[in-house]
Amino acid sequence: MIVAMKEGTSRSEAEQFAETLKKEGVAVHFSEGASRIVLGLVGDTSAVNGENLKAHHLVEKVIRVQEPYKRANRLFHPADTSVEIRTAGGTARIGGGTLGIIAGPCSVESREQIVDVARAVKKAGAAFLRGGAFKPRTSPYSFQGLGCGGLDLLLEVKKETGLPVVTELMGIHQLELFADVDVIQVGARNMQNFTLLRELGRCGKPVLLKRGLASTLTELLMAAEYIMAGGNDRIILCERGIRSFDNYTRNVLDISAIPALKRQSHLPVIVDPSHATGLSWMVPAMAKAAVAAGADGIIVEVHNNPEAALCDGEQSLTPGAFSLLMDALRKYADIEGKRVS
Amino acid sequence: MIVAMKEGTSRSEAEQFAETLKKEGVAVHFSEGASRIVLGLVGDTSAVNGENLKAHHLVEKVIRVQEPYKRANRLFHPADTSVEIRTAGGTARIGGGTLGIIAGPCSVESREQIVDVARAVKKAGAAFLRGGAFKPRTSPYSFQGLGCGGLDLLLEVKKETGLPVVTELMGIHQLELFADVDVIQVGARNMQNFTLLRELGRCGKPVLLKRGLASTLTELLMAAEYIMAGGNDRIILCERGIRSFDNYTRNVLDISAIPALKRQSHLPVIVDPSHATGLSWMVPAMAKAAVAAGADGIIVEVHNNPEAALCDGEQSLTPGAFSLLMDALRKYADIEGKRVS
Amino acid sequence: MIVAMKEGTSRSEAEQFAETLKKEGVAVHFSEGASRIVLGLVGDTSAVNGENLKAHHLVEKVIRVQEPYKRANRLFHPADTSVEIRTAGGTARIGGGTLGIIAGPCSVESREQIVDVARAVKKAGAAFLRGGAFKPRTSPYSFQGLGCGGLDLLLEVKKETGLPVVTELMGIHQLELFADVDVIQVGARNMQNFTLLRELGRCGKPVLLKRGLASTLTELLMAAEYIMAGGNDRIILCERGIRSFDNYTRNVLDISAIPALKRQSHLPVIVDPSHATGLSWMVPAMAKAAVAAGADGIIVEVHNNPEAALCDGEQSLTPGAFSLLMDALRKYADIEGKRVS
Amino acid sequence: MIVAMKEGTSRSEAEQFAETLKKEGVAVHFSEGASRIVLGLVGDTSAVNGENLKAHHLVEKVIRVQEPYKRANRLFHPADTSVEIRTAGGTARIGGGTLGIIAGPCSVESREQIVDVARAVKKAGAAFLRGGAFKPRTSPYSFQGLGCGGLDLLLEVKKETGLPVVTELMGIHQLELFADVDVIQVGARNMQNFTLLRELGRCGKPVLLKRGLASTLTELLMAAEYIMAGGNDRIILCERGIRSFDNYTRNVLDISAIPALKRQSHLPVIVDPSHATGLSWMVPAMAKAAVAAGADGIIVEVHNNPEAALCDGEQSLTPGAFSLLMDALRKYADIEGKRVS
Repeated sequence: MIVAMKEGTSRSEAEQFAETLKKEGVAVHFSEGASRIVLGLVGDTSAVNGENLKAHHLVEKVIRVQEPYKRANRLFHPADTSVEIRTAGGTARIGGGTLGIIAGPCSVESREQIVDVARAVKKAGAAFLRGGAFKPRTSPYSFQGLGCGGLDLLLEVKKETGLPVVTELMGIHQLELFADVDVIQVGARNMQNFTLLRELGRCGKPVLLKRGLASTLTELLMAAEYIMAGGNDRIILCERGIRSFDNYTRNVLDISAIPALKRQSHLPVIVDPSHATGLSWMVPAMAKAAVAAGADGIIVEVHNNPEAALCDGEQSLTPGAFSLLMDALRKYADIEGKRVS
Repeated sequence: MIVAMKEGTSRSEAEQFAETLKKEGVAVHFSEGASRIVLGLVGDTSAVNGENLKAHHLVEKVIRVQEPYKRANRLFHPADTSVEIRTAGGTARIGGGTLGIIAGPCSVESREQIVDVARAVKKAGAAFLRGGAFKPRTSPYSFQGLGCGGLDLLLEVKKETGLPVVTELMGIHQLELFADVDVIQVGARNMQNFTLLRELGRCGKPVLLKRGLASTLTELLMAAEYIMAGGNDRIILCERGIRSFDNYTRNVLDISAIPALKRQSHLPVIVDPSHATGLSWMVPAMAKAAVAAGADGIIVEVHNNPEAALCDGEQSLTPGAFSLLMDALRKYADIEGKRVS
Repeated sequence: MIVAMKEGTSRSEAEQFAETLKKEGVAVHFSEGASRIVLGLVGDTSAVNGENLKAHHLVEKVIRVQEPYKRANRLFHPADTSVEIRTAGGTARIGGGTLGIIAGPCSVESREQIVDVARAVKKAGAAFLRGGAFKPRTSPYSFQGLGCGGLDLLLEVKKETGLPVVTELMGIHQLELFADVDVIQVGARNMQNFTLLRELGRCGKPVLLKRGLASTLTELLMAAEYIMAGGNDRIILCERGIRSFDNYTRNVLDISAIPALKRQSHLPVIVDPSHATGLSWMVPAMAKAAVAAGADGIIVEVHNNPEAALCDGEQSLTPGAFSLLMDALRKYADIEGKRVS
Repeated sequence: MIVAMKEGTSRSEAEQFAETLKKEGVAVHFSEGASRIVLGLVGDTSAVNGENLKAHHLVEKVIRVQEPYKRANRLFHPADTSVEIRTAGGTARIGGGTLGIIAGPCSVESREQIVDVARAVKKAGAAFLRGGAFKPRTSPYSFQGLGCGGLDLLLEVKKETGLPVVTELMGIHQLELFADVDVIQVGARNMQNFTLLRELGRCGKPVLLKRGLASTLTELLMAAEYIMAGGNDRIILCERGIRSFDNYTRNVLDISAIPALKRQSHLPVIVDPSHATGLSWMVPAMAKAAVAAGADGIIVEVHNNPEAALCDGEQSLTPGAFSLLMDALRKYADIEGKRVS
C-alpha cells in the first residue's frame, strides 16, 4: 500500500504518522521527493483500512498495490477451481476444463412446462437445470413466481431427469427450503446483500454468484470473499451484463470480465447471455463469444413456448434453438480444448 | 401503452393479437401506417406486462406512456407528502415545506462518541440523529459495526437528547430489534431486496429508501411502490450518488434527481452528500446545491474526530464545520420559502 | 412516430396540433384513451423533428418507432455490404463473408520498425496494414506521431508489401495528404466531428469509423449516415470499447454491438480489441470473441518491440503472438463459414 | 509517480529497470516489500509516459501521484483566474467573484428572433449573448444553423446591444470568420479535437470549453492544457452533463464537477443547465444548484417562442422565466459573496 503525503508535510510529521501505521503491523519505507513524501507500507496490509487513512489531514492519496481479497485470489491459489456436483448419473462440473451448461426457463410455471423444458435441455446436452421459483421483480404487481410450489416441481423434475437444479434464493429465511437444491443462485441485486453472503458461507452448498449491474470486478470478488471467509469455496462467478448509456440491449454483457476474472481469481466464471441482452436472437452470438473468451460455462433461458412465458419470454430460446446452439458450443469448446459437461 | 407491430404484419394478424390484449381488460386502438400497424392500449395498463408482449413474434416495440407505479405517483396524489415523527419535544418533519436535517456519525463507535456527536448536531440544529449499528461493508475484513450494542447506544442517546433515530436495517431478521428506531434506513445495496421491501410495507415505520448506485429513478419509485403496496406510505426517498466513469468523487451526486423525483412523485426527497462524494470538504457545496434544487432535507455525516473514525472518516464533517453548514442552509431555506426542522 | 398528449388536452386542442403536423407531410391517427390522447404519425417522419415537438406545451412524450437513419439502414438495403480495396496482388475485402484483418503498430516510429512489423503481419495473414502518423493524444506533452514523415513511411511500405494502408485523419486540412491512403480512419474522439464526416462523404475513399467512447449505436449509425448522405457508402463500423464504471480494462469492449449493428445496418462491423482493453494479454481472447459474435474483421496492434514502443506498448502483440492469434482466428472463421482475407 | 514491480522481480532486475528511468531525468527510490519491490519516481515526472512503462514485462502497476497538467493546475497558480472581455460599456467578466451570465437562443433563426431575445436577456441582466450559427446536429437531416448569415446577425446585435457574443466553432477552417466573436465555444463533441484545441491556443481569444459527455475531469483539464500550451490561458470550463444509465434527463448534470474543478484548477467554471437536462422546467433548479455549489457563471438557453424554435425548444426558457431566474440567482450570488456581472 502506498500513501502519498500532502505537499508541505515535513519529515517529522510523516514519521509521526508512520508510527501509527506501524502499530497495525506493517513496515514503512520512505521516499522523499522534491515536492512530497511517499510512504510504502510493507507486510500484510489487508488489516489496514485505506479509506480511514484518507481521513488524515496530512494524507493526499492512498493506493492499494495488492488486491484486498485473499481466498478468491489466484495469487495464493494458482490452480483453477472447479465446482462439482454429485448426481445420480455421475458428476456435473463447471470449470477446470469442463464447460458447464445450465439451461431452463426463467420461471417455473407448471409441471408440464418444467418437465418439457428439462427433458429438452437434457437431450440437447445441458448438465444443469435452471428455473426460478421465487422471482425478484422490479414491480410489485408482476408475477412473483410459484414460490414453494415451484421449488417442489423443480425437485420433482430433478428426480426424473437426474439434472442437478440451480435456483435463486431471495433471503436467508428461505435457506431451509433449499436443502435439496444443488446450486444456490444469488441474483445481481443481492450481490452485496452481506447478510445473505455471510450465511451462504456457512451452508456448504455451491453458490452461483451473479455480478451486480454496476459492480466492479473487485466488488464481485469481495462478495465471493464474504462467502469464502465463512469456509465455503464452492463458488461460480457469473457475468450477466452491466448498466450503460445505451439501451439497445437490456445491459451490456462485459465479455472482457471473463479473462479479467480468471486472471485475478481461481474461481470458475460463467456467463448469462439471456439476462444480459434480453433478446433471444442475440443469445447464440453472445454464448459463443463467451466460450471463445474462455468462459467455464453458460446459463441460458429456454422455454417451450416463449410467447406465452409469464416472465422474460423475449429472451428465451426455444428447445430447437438451444439444441443448435449446443452444437455450435461443442465446436468452440473443442477448439479451446474443453469438454462440454 | 403503445405496441408497434413488425413490418409486414397484416391487419388480420394484428386484430387477432389485439383480441388477446383485450382479455387483459384494455381497449385497443389501431393506427395503420404506410409501413406498419401501431396499437394504442387504452385503460388500466398496469396489469399488462410489456416485457411479455415483446416476446410475441409480431411485436417490434412496446412503449409505456404512463409510469408503472401508482401509489408513489404524483398524478394520483398531487399534494406533497411529509413524513412526521412524534418526539418528546414535539414533531420532527421531512417534506411539505420543512427541510429535515439528519446528522451523525457513519458508525456508532462508543457511548462517548455518539453522545458527543448527538449533542453537537442537536445544538447546531439537526432534527434527527443518524448512526450505523450494523454496517454493510464491501470487505468481510472491515469493521462491521457494533451491532446490537450500537443500537442500544443510539436508543440511549435518543432518550437523552430527544432526537429521533435513523439507522440502517440489513435484513428482515433484524426487524424486531428495530422496534424503537424512528426511521428505518434501507441502504443503496438493498434498494431492490424485494423481500425486505415487502416486509417494510407491513411494519408501519417511516422508511428512508436510498437509491441504488445504478438504479433509474423509475426503479427507485418502483421500490417505494413495493413498500407502499403493503400499506406503508411513510417513505423518504434519498439520492446518494450514482456510478459513473469518473472517480474523482466516490459517486456522482445526481442533483437533477431531486426535481425529477418531486415532479413524478409526492414523496419527500433528501440527499446524502457525504456518501455521494466521499470528501468532507465537498459536502457543504453539495448540501447547499441540494437545497437550492428543492431537496426536502439532508443526511450528513458528522464525527467528533474524523481522523480517528473507524469508518468513512474522510467524508465526515467536524461539529464545527456542520454548524457553519447549518448557518448557510438556513439562508438557502429562507430563499426557497422553507423552514429548517 | 408516436406523440402522447398531456392529460387534460382536449380533442379540439389535439386536432389543432395535428394540423401543424400534417403540414410536414404526415398523416395523423388519433387514439383517445381514458386519460389522454395519443397521436400516431404515419408517412415519412424523418422530416419531423421529435425534439421540437417536445417543446409544445401540450406534448407529454414523443416516441420514434422507426430509426432516424436511412442509407445505413438494413431495412432499405437487406444484403450485406462489403468494402473492397484493389491491391497490387488482387482485392482486399472486409465483410460479406470475408474476415478482414488489419494489423500494425499504434504509431509509425521508424522505417525499420514499420517494415519489420508490416512484413511480419503480412506473413501471418493480415490483409491490411495499420499505423498512426498523426496521433490524437490526451496530453499535449505526449508523442504526437511522426506526422507527414510517418505517412511517407507507410506509403513506402505499402509499395513494398502490397498491403493497403489504414491510418487516422485528424482534420479536413489533412485530406490532400491522404490521397494514397487506402482506408481513412476516423477516431473515436472525432466520431461526431460533423465537419469531418461531411467532407469524407465527398471523398470517395473507404472510411473506418470508430464508435465514440460514450456513443450509442444509433449515434454511430447517424455518423455513418452523415458520410453516406454525401454519397460515400464505403464505410466500416468499428467497436472499440465504451466508458464504464470499472477500470480494470481501459474501456469495456461491447461485443453485443456486433450483432446489434449487423441487425440494424448492412455495413460491415469490425472490432479493435487493442484499444478497448489496453492489455495485450487480453487481446486474443477478445479477438476470438468478436469473431464468434459475428464480426467482419479485427484491427489489432502489433509491435516488434512492445516494451520500447513510443505509444501504447502495453496493448501491442508481438509478431509471434499475432501469428498464433491468426491460427486461432482461422479456425473460428471456419466454424462461422467465413474466409480470412 | 509510483511503479510497482511484479512479484518475483529481483532487486538487480529492478535496479536495471530503474537505470532506464533515470535517463528521463528522475530520481528513483526503492521500497522493498515482503512480496514485491515498489519504485518511487521523484522529480519532474511529466516527461515520463506511464502508459509506456506498463508495457515493460516486469511492471505490475503505474500510479501517478501528481496530475499530468501544469498550466491549468491550481498547484502552480493558486489565485483564481477570471476571463474578461472589453465591451462598449465597460468589462464583462466570468470568475474571480463575478457570476457571468450567458443567455440566448440555441440557434440564431432570424433577425427578429435574435434581436428580441438579446434585448430581453440584457434587460434581465445577462452579460453575454449566446446563439448558434453553425450547429453540430446528430442527424445530417436536421437544421444545421444559418451559418455565416447567423454569424452576421449575431455581430449586428452585438453592435446594437453591446453584449459580447459567445458562439460555437465547428472546425479550424472557420477561425477567420470568428474574428469579431468575443468568446469561442468548443462543443462537447469537439473537446478532444486536438487539432482544433492546438489552433485555439494560438488565437488569443477567450475559449468556452465544454466537457465531453463521457470525459473525466482530468481529460477536460488536459484539453484546457492543450490550449494553454499554445499560450492562450483565457479559458472558461463548462460542465454540461454526462452520459449515464438513466434517461429521464438528457444527461446527468454533474454539479460536483464545480468544486472538483475549482480545487484542481484556477480556471473559471460555468454550467449549462439547458443542454444537460433538456427540460426547460428543470433549468432554474439546476442553475440555482450550480451557483450554490460555487459556479462562476451559467450559460442558459432563452427563446422568445420556444414552441416554434427550430432547435432545442423544449429546453429553452421564455424571457419571462429567465428574468425570474435572474432574480433568484442574484439572491444566491449574494449569499455566496459574489456579484452578478
